[in-house]
Amino acid sequence: MPLTPDQIAEIEDARAQRHQTIRATAPGMEAHLYKAHEVLDHGFVRVIDYMGDDAAITQAARVSYGKGTKKVTNDEGLIRYLMRHWHSTPFEMCEVKFHVKLPVFVARQWIRHRTANVNEYSARYSILNREFYIPAPDALAAQSVVNNQGRGELLEGDEAERVLSILKADAMRAYDHYEDMLSQDGQKGLARELARMNLPANIYTQWYWKTDLHNLFHFLRLRADVHAQYEIRVYAEAMCAIVADWVPLAYGAFADYRMGGVQLSGKAIDCVRRMLKGEEVTQASSGMSAGEWREFEATLKD
Amino acid sequence: MPLTPDQIAEIEDARAQRHQTIRATAPGMEAHLYKAHEVLDHGFVRVIDYMGDDAAITQAARVSYGKGTKKVTNDEGLIRYLMRHWHSTPFEMCEVKFHVKLPVFVARQWIRHRTANVNEYSARYSILNREFYIPAPDALAAQSVVNNQGRGELLEGDEAERVLSILKADAMRAYDHYEDMLSQDGQKGLARELARMNLPANIYTQWYWKTDLHNLFHFLRLRADVHAQYEIRVYAEAMCAIVADWVPLAYGAFADYRMGGVQLSGKAIDCVRRMLKGEEVTQASSGMSAGEWREFEATLKD
Amino acid sequence: MPLTPDQIAEIEDARAQRHQTIRATAPGMEAHLYKAHEVLDHGFVRVIDYMGDDAAITQAARVSYGKGTKKVTNDEGLIRYLMRHWHSTPFEMCEVKFHVKLPVFVARQWIRHRTANVNEYSARYSILNREFYIPAPDALAAQSVVNNQGRGELLEGDEAERVLSILKADAMRAYDHYEDMLSQDGQKGLARELARMNLPANIYTQWYWKTDLHNLFHFLRLRADVHAQYEIRVYAEAMCAIVADWVPLAYGAFADYRMGGVQLSGKAIDCVRRMLKGEEVTQASSGMSAGEWREFEATLKD
Amino acid sequence: MPLTPDQIAEIEDARAQRHQTIRATAPGMEAHLYKAHEVLDHGFVRVIDYMGDDAAITQAARVSYGKGTKKVTNDEGLIRYLMRHWHSTPFEMCEVKFHVKLPVFVARQWIRHRTANVNEYSARYSILNREFYIPAPDALAAQSVVNNQGRGELLEGDEAERVLSILKADAMRAYDHYEDMLSQDGQKGLARELARMNLPANIYTQWYWKTDLHNLFHFLRLRADVHAQYEIRVYAEAMCAIVADWVPLAYGAFADYRMGGVQLSGKAIDCVRRMLKGEEVTQASSGMSAGEWREFEATLKD
Repeated sequence: MPLTPDQIAEIEDARAQRHQTIRATAPGMEAHLYKAHEVLDHGFVRVIDYMGDDAAITQAARVSYGKGTKKVTNDEGLIRYLMRHWHSTPFEMCEVKFHVKLPVFVARQWIRHRTANVNEYSARYSILNREFYIPAPDALAAQSVVNNQGRGELLEGDEAERVLSILKADAMRAYDHYEDMLSQDGQKGLARELARMNLPANIYTQWYWKTDLHNLFHFLRLRADVHAQYEIRVYAEAMCAIVADWVPLAYGAFADYRMGGVQLSGKAIDCVRRMLKGEEVTQASSGMSAGEWREFEATLKD
Repeated sequence: MPLTPDQIAEIEDARAQRHQTIRATAPGMEAHLYKAHEVLDHGFVRVIDYMGDDAAITQAARVSYGKGTKKVTNDEGLIRYLMRHWHSTPFEMCEVKFHVKLPVFVARQWIRHRTANVNEYSARYSILNREFYIPAPDALAAQSVVNNQGRGELLEGDEAERVLSILKADAMRAYDHYEDMLSQDGQKGLARELARMNLPANIYTQWYWKTDLHNLFHFLRLRADVHAQYEIRVYAEAMCAIVADWVPLAYGAFADYRMGGVQLSGKAIDCVRRMLKGEEVTQASSGMSAGEWREFEATLKD
Repeated sequence: MPLTPDQIAEIEDARAQRHQTIRATAPGMEAHLYKAHEVLDHGFVRVIDYMGDDAAITQAARVSYGKGTKKVTNDEGLIRYLMRHWHSTPFEMCEVKFHVKLPVFVARQWIRHRTANVNEYSARYSILNREFYIPAPDALAAQSVVNNQGRGELLEGDEAERVLSILKADAMRAYDHYEDMLSQDGQKGLARELARMNLPANIYTQWYWKTDLHNLFHFLRLRADVHAQYEIRVYAEAMCAIVADWVPLAYGAFADYRMGGVQLSGKAIDCVRRMLKGEEVTQASSGMSAGEWREFEATLKD
Repeated sequence: MPLTPDQIAEIEDARAQRHQTIRATAPGMEAHLYKAHEVLDHGFVRVIDYMGDDAAITQAARVSYGKGTKKVTNDEGLIRYLMRHWHSTPFEMCEVKFHVKLPVFVARQWIRHRTANVNEYSARYSILNREFYIPAPDALAAQSVVNNQGRGELLEGDEAERVLSILKADAMRAYDHYEDMLSQDGQKGLARELARMNLPANIYTQWYWKTDLHNLFHFLRLRADVHAQYEIRVYAEAMCAIVADWVPLAYGAFADYRMGGVQLSGKAIDCVRRMLKGEEVTQASSGMSAGEWREFEATLKD
């Protein structure tokens, strides 16, 4: 349960408010505002604020004065055109601010996306809560034997139990010691900025993370991808569902051109052309390395 | 007159709309939304959208769940503290999108601020309007004789008249020729992307420009400064007035610490300390160069 | 002739210097250093400094201590792998600084690439030279009749002559008037920051432009593309030739995956799969719009 | 001891190489190249590559063709002028790449500086080493009682011993368990990307970190400041010493205007002016809050 009763009450309170505005509003996004979408065992992602909608994208593309009179089909065509031809600036006209609660090792991957604004809970200033990510049984995977950077089969039986008991016991002990070191009961108490160093990377932190739609799409393409680590992918997937409701046309174009699309090298598209003419192309005649050919064949079969 | 009757009608139409939202709204900013604030002879700046308010800044600083129960005096104190200690990320939580119409030579200075999103009217795709900046008499200044990068006295009499007539005649002729070259009356017509090269830098362009409050403050500090070129400063001043209504606490802190504040070097603050102890400090005993000392003396007298 | 005899002498002087360094050097780049590659009628691009080489990319990817013992074939495979899978950070480890002389309307497109460092010649501070871009006959194109943002056939005969004579005469007159307004012969002289507004967009400016290899590739992909305006494309092509000598492995991967590669949408790759199985796919059965299908067919034929 | 004998041999090998270049070289920086400056108990910072020197800053400011003929005193005056007036782009013309080994909790602070390029050792791909930061006795401080975000007195006696023994034991146990979970001895072995979550924040990581001089100065101003956490400040101080040798004029200006300088608010400089005229200014008459007045008084006394 990621939220306390107090937090739930605050969210309901925030959602009960009604303001009048003459700004553009996105009804699909209003429905998500403030709500916590649960991710992993204690995490969540929720929208705190947003700016713009699908119309803001086409309006920027036209740099026009008003909403124009174009029909929705035209807007969709324009948005797909912009996405297809890598016109990124119109998508930058939409902005969104998330509140995310996430394990530290996920936060360390996430922060590598630099074109965003971040305010993280400060463990120099405040005391972290006793909340740790412990993988569910279906996320407890072995090291992949074919991929240095991925997962293989699930751990089962004794090995799974042993791993889980280590993770749980170490987390609790580390937190007990964190509290012991901070303690001022007749002692000085270690500075918070030092005591935190004893906490493992599966402890939860939280932050406000704000970015524009173009950079959000870039983040989602990499982090909702099947090669991303499972623990960040589930956050990206929750955000995809939110974005699909916020800017349905832009999300549709993104899903088709980026998430569902493929990038073919010059060699690869040349092979496709030859194959369509009936040529039997092999790795040897493709000009590709073994690894490239393997990926190319997988793309054609998918 | 920067706006056509059609544009005025569109703005009034946009302002007449009322949407319900559960987002935070800033009443001071709602009053500005869409309205064109006239700048120079044909330019304007107007707010198209915004995200956040003063509370969004303190909320990010606290990374708390709700609005908290702190009184406004605390919010003001916290915002001043953040500004004083260069904590920039909470100010990044507010975002604003402007529609600006401005001369090209002003746009060329403006665009040097890179941390912003921009969609400019495309002179490859569309035809520019016949609108040029011609300085008003009180902006027609001579080259400064003490500052390589500034203005001196006003031009007057014959010289002023001659300069104005050159600027006006050249602008009109350049635009006539632009139209002539584009003309397809029995001819092919030069490509728009080429024809535009004949237009001088005082022609007006327009763009959507979106940035966060921290980077906006940085822009305003440099461009609302007395050393900025007059033609960009008037845009910055119009924006200052808007921002003061949008986030009054943050703007107040900005005005005091950045616009009204001064940066003293180590040598300069050391001189101040010695002077406060009664020492008569001269340039020779200050350790400063002549130029630094001159600026230092001006700061103390201001 | 873009360079004066003095400038040529300075470049030869700079190239005659020899320093010892223990930094990595790229012999292919040393051969280019300082040399001006002429572009358009008065422009050039030249390398002022650089950091890193192909090995710096693989070294960052490995975050190893030294050069390692991997063979070049491995380096090439690794670099192609990084490019294929959009791993951008290793390419960011190389940096290059160019000195570019270019028409203002080209500079206005170029500056939209924000992730770079720029120092431009200041027309507030200094007086611009009498140098304007006048298109060569084979660049004097009509507006495209199929593409709002492109060129069609060449202008010829009377129309070509008329356009060229307008461009030349207006440029000379504008510059004469620029000088007249600046003149202090018995007059005050208009401030330089104002006088420049009379100069058309084909006047040359110059700047130092510094960026990392990842962002340079992004720039080159968009600006060396066949859809880019000719006048910026020739700069991008000159830079491609330099980069190919600097980091031959990275440039090879870029040429194959980015310049020569194609991006297929989910719908498009699905059509390819069906076609390879022998299905006759039409626009109607493709799920694509007419415009998308046209681009898709062109890709397969290319 | 942060370096293994193999690493030391590699560094010596790299330093023994001599290349000829016609690029500018900075002799003070060549002396540092590749050398590991030890920081904390197992960390280091070392320069891997650099671009530019003091002359590159003034050259960009002048956008000139060559080195010019200005004397060093002029270069120093120009650099101090640029620093005083917040002209940041010339400083962006210098670039440096560091290899840093640092505890994860320091890396988490460091990465918040977004305008830099980073390649970090991947704990998804590789196994981390058994190296943890354990504070030296003179860094083992209690929580400050006056500052929520700082340190107070040193811990001593039993409390110090108890804290150190906790940190050491927990680190060793966490690493033992990390190895146990990865172990494949008759078991599948947990994926590396999961096993790392058990490791505390004082484990060491390493990265390549590349930035330009302007952004490096911004980093150093905040992180070499007395309010920065000790464990990142020691890295910043080591980098300050390197930068002082690399670009002595720019570093001198930075030390005087940024590190040694102070920012006074409009209210504060007004008080200084009144005090210099002999007025006895108190908090009540200053217009400042109690906190601001306390900081102001400290500035004047310092």
